[in-house]
This record gives sequence, structure tokens and C-alpha cells, in this order.
Amino acid sequence: VALCVPAAIAALRSEPEIRVILAGDPVEIEGQLKSVASAVRDRIEIEPASSVLANDAKPTAVLRRGKDSSMWNAFALVAEGRAHACISAGSTAAMMVLGVRLIGMLPGIERPALMAYLPTMRGYTGMLDVGANMNVTAEQLVQFAVMGAMSAGNVAATEQPSIGLLNVGHEDGKGHDLVRKAHEMLIELPLNYAGFIEGHDLFEGKVDVAVCDGFAGNLMLKSAEGLARMFMTELKSALQENRISKLGAALAGPALRRWLARRDPSAHNGAPLLGLKGVAVKSHGGADGQGLTQAILEAGREVRRQVPERIGNSIHTYHLETQS
Amino acid sequence: VALCVPAAIAALRSEPEIRVILAGDPVEIEGQLKSVASAVRDRIEIEPASSVLANDAKPTAVLRRGKDSSMWNAFALVAEGRAHACISAGSTAAMMVLGVRLIGMLPGIERPALMAYLPTMRGYTGMLDVGANMNVTAEQLVQFAVMGAMSAGNVAATEQPSIGLLNVGHEDGKGHDLVRKAHEMLIELPLNYAGFIEGHDLFEGKVDVAVCDGFAGNLMLKSAEGLARMFMTELKSALQENRISKLGAALAGPALRRWLARRDPSAHNGAPLLGLKGVAVKSHGGADGQGLTQAILEAGREVRRQVPERIGNSIHTYHLETQS
Repeated sequence: VALCVPAAIAALRSEPEIRVILAGDPVEIEGQLKSVASAVRDRIEIEPASSVLANDAKPTAVLRRGKDSSMWNAFALVAEGRAHACISAGSTAAMMVLGVRLIGMLPGIERPALMAYLPTMRGYTGMLDVGANMNVTAEQLVQFAVMGAMSAGNVAATEQPSIGLLNVGHEDGKGHDLVRKAHEMLIELPLNYAGFIEGHDLFEGKVDVAVCDGFAGNLMLKSAEGLARMFMTELKSALQENRISKLGAALAGPALRRWLARRDPSAHNGAPLLGLKGVAVKSHGGADGQGLTQAILEAGREVRRQVPERIGNSIHTYHLETQS
Repeated sequence: VALCVPAAIAALRSEPEIRVILAGDPVEIEGQLKSVASAVRDRIEIEPASSVLANDAKPTAVLRRGKDSSMWNAFALVAEGRAHACISAGSTAAMMVLGVRLIGMLPGIERPALMAYLPTMRGYTGMLDVGANMNVTAEQLVQFAVMGAMSAGNVAATEQPSIGLLNVGHEDGKGHDLVRKAHEMLIELPLNYAGFIEGHDLFEGKVDVAVCDGFAGNLMLKSAEGLARMFMTELKSALQENRISKLGAALAGPALRRWLARRDPSAHNGAPLLGLKGVAVKSHGGADGQGLTQAILEAGREVRRQVPERIGNSIHTYHLETQS
């Protein structure tokens, strides 16, 4: 909560067209809005909520006892048409169940999927699912591919984003039955499908969208985050090794800082939860204020590009294609 | 082949106790051994082989037409007791089928698993499986944990290595049925089991051994390799940005190079294929000569620690525990 209000104010300042409804304790929120200029304050509404969902709340508990929590009320705003999008840094599982219950799934999509943007050698690659679905079918992987293609235009700026299916090898016979079956279905569809990709293709930026199940996707995403942190820690300590390396670090500092600023994870925070009838964006649990601002702006982009409508339209085409 | 002979010579020079049998075309191998000192040459034998398995050869093709290939003959040497271990940079799938067919599985182990060593903030963590098994059962994940614990002592130098089960969250209810079931079995066993770990725990070095299925493990390993390459490329280019950063890089160069030498992937190449009645070590397909040497030395360590015997003994204890 402490970060949400300043993050919303920063988003409102950077995007004059958006309005924000803050769901939470009105007294607490009002307290943080006291010194805000009226030009910004006028674009903020407060939606009262009486509780905050625990990060480890089980889906059943969320549905039974989550009513009037900030996340519930935020999703309800979208469901009622009072908001175009919902942003949360809370639990993915809670967002899943509330998204499905309150906003509802798009017809033709069986499960929502979370798409994270990874920095690559060539720009950014959207990877989905990164944690919403532990067990998937081949059909669901195909639906993820369609959803990713419709959403990825946001960042990749290509109208036909290339799609890769993550596997342990490039050849047709590789992997388990599930990916092989999804591969055969994807070949037949009018997508820019690049075939199987391997783990190392991800950061090489071989495709715009990488598709996988939520178990492997979550492990890849989080292990990459851990490796990046290790790398940064070790780089800093190597540069601090002795007087000469410290002098070198001071001289190379500005160039290194420019590079790190480009690679700042908070600059690309905000993972859309795709497949719902409305826009929902998950912020990284560990995101700072700047990261939360980016998640709000990402939600704005999804809304402007009408991602749910585009997914809804295209999935019907794909269903017709697969049945013909 | 070009790299194998020099890598073997380097291994023989660094470890006076080992002997090497090179399986391949005798004429070609002899040609590379011409100028080798007799002290080393005397510890090299040649096992003639008439072909080399293609990297993409299907398992059925390997079994039907792979006879008298270099990999087949190397596994046969172990099966016949003429060698203690087999090392190959060839296909994992081929090593799997030949290992199972010629050396055989340890009783109580259903599937062999490949364990890679990852550099972490605290040292090294063994991760298995990294690509030998696409579909696993909960029981097989438990067997991987036992095999990893028996092998990891090699590097971690702890007699009771800590074991983590990779999952999308630390809490008991997280993940799919398979990991939850394996988790409940592991809790009951006399292992140093640390519970579920997440992707970011891997490079933080939270455990000595991380257990997962071969699909997710392969994707994590290869995406980490890709991210490390991206990081190195970008670090170099940031340091080359302008004259001042270049000067800084020159001053910090020795410290950075010492760090990178510690992190050189070839320094820890060599993934044991565990669960067989003998030692088999897979070298990374892209390993250089130094990497291949390390894979040979890793095989030597597995033999000295009697890893197959230890796995065979302990798996029976664990089977008894789970049945009681």
C-alpha cells in the first residue's frame, strides 16, 4: 500500500490520459494524497476496501472470505465497467481466481496465463505462462500462443509477432507428448510460428513470444532473476577487488550505469494476465515504486490495444481453423 | 574427435592415477598421439570403433544401428569391466539408451538422470534431471534426490548434502500433484531435505542438490547459459562504449578476468548420468578441450567416490523406509 499511491501519482503524471481508482483503506489513502496537486488528485478516485488478501491465501479462501478486500474490489470495478484494467502486486493465484470469477474468461480460452517480458539480446521476449497454470494441455499451450501473439505487439511493435514453443531440442521428435502435440497444432495455424525453441534461444531473442507451461516458465523466470542478481553482486565485488580495479570501476562507472539502467527490471515490470474479458496486470511482488508505475502504464497499453477483444476475435478464427 | 585426444592427454597429465581408453578410428587417434611423451602414451589405449553416432540419432536407431560406434564401444568397455567410466560429448538420449542397455540400471532406480553443476553465490549446486527424462513420476523424483545426494559430495564436500525440490513456491500446497507427492515422500526419508525451493534459490546456493523433472531442468539450465552469455556480451560492450570506459576496463581488467576465470563454464563441465551400474559422464556438446578434460576428471571423482555403489546401497534403505 505504501508504494501504490506514489506509483499511481507517477503514472498519472507520465500519462495525462489515464485515471486511477485506488482500492483500499480510504483513510490511509487520503492521508497519502494530501499534498498532491489538484490536476493529479482530480484523476484519482478511492474505492473503499476493508481488507488486504494475504499473499499465501488459498484460492478457496480467497473466494469464500476475500469479499471487500482491495483485490476483490479492484476486479469488481473492471467487472462492473467502472475501470478498464486492474493492477495488483498480490498473489498470482488470487488474481487468477478473482479474474475468472469476477471478470470471466473469454469464450474459447480455457485458462488465463501470465506473460512476463524478458530482456534479450534483440529487445524483449514475452514468455507465457510464468506461473498461473501448473498443468496444461496441448490445446491450452496453443491458446497461450494466440494470446501471446495478440498481446506482444505492445512491446515488440511487430504486427505478426514470432512465436516459439519452448522445448529441450529443436527437432520434431524432441520433448514430451504435450509439446509435440501443441507443435503439430501450431504449425497448422495462421500464426508466425517459429517452431520449437530451446532455453538458450530465449535470451538470444530468437522469438517475440515464448510459450511454455506455468511450472517450467516460473522456474525459468525466477532462476534467471536469481542468476542476474548473482551476476550483479559478483561484478560489483570484482570491481571492488583492489585500488586499481576501483579506479577502473570509477572510470567505467557511467557506461556501466547506463547499461544497468537499460536492464533495470522495474523498467519492464507488469505481466498481463491474459485470457480474461478485461485487462489485469500482475506486478512483481518485489517491485519498487518505479516498477509499480510501469505495471500501471502496461495496463494502459493493454487497454489501448484492446488486447482482450483481439484475443476474443482471433481465438474464434483459430478454433475454426483447427476444426476445419 | 579433434578435441578428445588433447583433452585426454591433459587429464592424464593432471591426474597421474588415471588411464584412458580412446574409442574411435585408430588411425586418426594414432595420428594425434605421435608426439606424446611415453609416460603419458603408456596410459592410453585405443578401442577401435567404426563410426560416430549422429547427435540427432533417434534412440531406436542407436540401438539398431549404433553397434561398433565410438559411444557404443565406450559403454561396452564399462559393461565388460575393462573401464571404470565412460565419458561422451554426444547425444544425451543416445547415452541414456546405451547406458541402460549395456551397463544396466541399478536395482531400485527406474530411470537414469543427468546432474549438472551450477555456480551459485555459495559454491556449486547440483541440479538433476537436466534433460534425460521428459516425464517423471513422484517416485522417480525421490530417486533423483537420493542419487543427487550420493553424487553431490564430490563437489559440495558435505557428507549430508542438502536437497531441495524445485517448485513455484515454498508453501506446502504449491505446484502440481507430482511435486507435492514427491515432497511428502521426501519429508519421511533420512535425507537432509530442505523442502521446496524456488527458481531464485538455485543461484543463491540455498541447497547442494536441486531436484526437478528433465524438461524444466533442461530449460532452466539452457536459459541460464543464454542469460550468462547475454550478460557477458553486454558487459563487454558497455566497457567498450567510449575512451574513458575503455580505460576503466583496462584498469579493472585483471580483477574482472580473475572473476570470469572462476566462472568459466568449462571449469565445471561434466554432468554425471546417475542411476547406472557404472559411471557415465556427459560433457556439454559445446565444451572446449579444457571442458572435456574436466569431464574426464569428474568421471574419475565419481569412480573414486564409488557413486554407483553408494546409490545402489542407499536406494534400498530408502525403499525399505518408504515401505515401512
